[in-house]
Amino acid sequence: MSIIPRMDKKLKPSATRKRFALNLRKTREQLGLSQEALADAAGLHRTYVGSVERGERNISIDNIERLALALGVSPDSLLEEPKK
Amino acid sequence: MSIIPRMDKKLKPSATRKRFALNLRKTREQLGLSQEALADAAGLHRTYVGSVERGERNISIDNIERLALALGVSPDSLLEEPKK
Repeated sequence: MSIIPRMDKKLKPSATRKRFALNLRKTREQLGLSQEALADAAGLHRTYVGSVERGERNISIDNIERLALALGVSPDSLLEEPKK
Repeated sequence: MSIIPRMDKKLKPSATRKRFALNLRKTREQLGLSQEALADAAGLHRTYVGSVERGERNISIDNIERLALALGVSPDSLLEEPKK
């Protein structure tokens, strides 16, 4: 019956999405991989990886797994709040 | 050029999806919530939550966030490998 807090979910990109975007970029850069190299390794398109890193995509759990496998990290680590 | 390991990704539900499904159900049951109560709290449909808990859905990061917020846990905790 309560649908009160839904509106703003549609308007702002989710915090988790932004966190994932930042973690993805950081991990990729630490490995010295280009977006294209990561995309190839994960079986995804380069422009898709770019838009995920900008927080523009509502990425699915299967694609989160693909990117984590390609980076050699656990999927949950890409959703973690950055330490520090 | 290489599209070798893609086929089986389509056939089997991903390990991460199954892990999420199990963690979601476990956390929900620990809180004594029904699928319907969780769905209401997260702004999702009851049948959708049921299919996510069976690993049938390629859930998006925004919906992972909604469920985690409704359960009061961090999104990454729902993707973690179970301890023990």
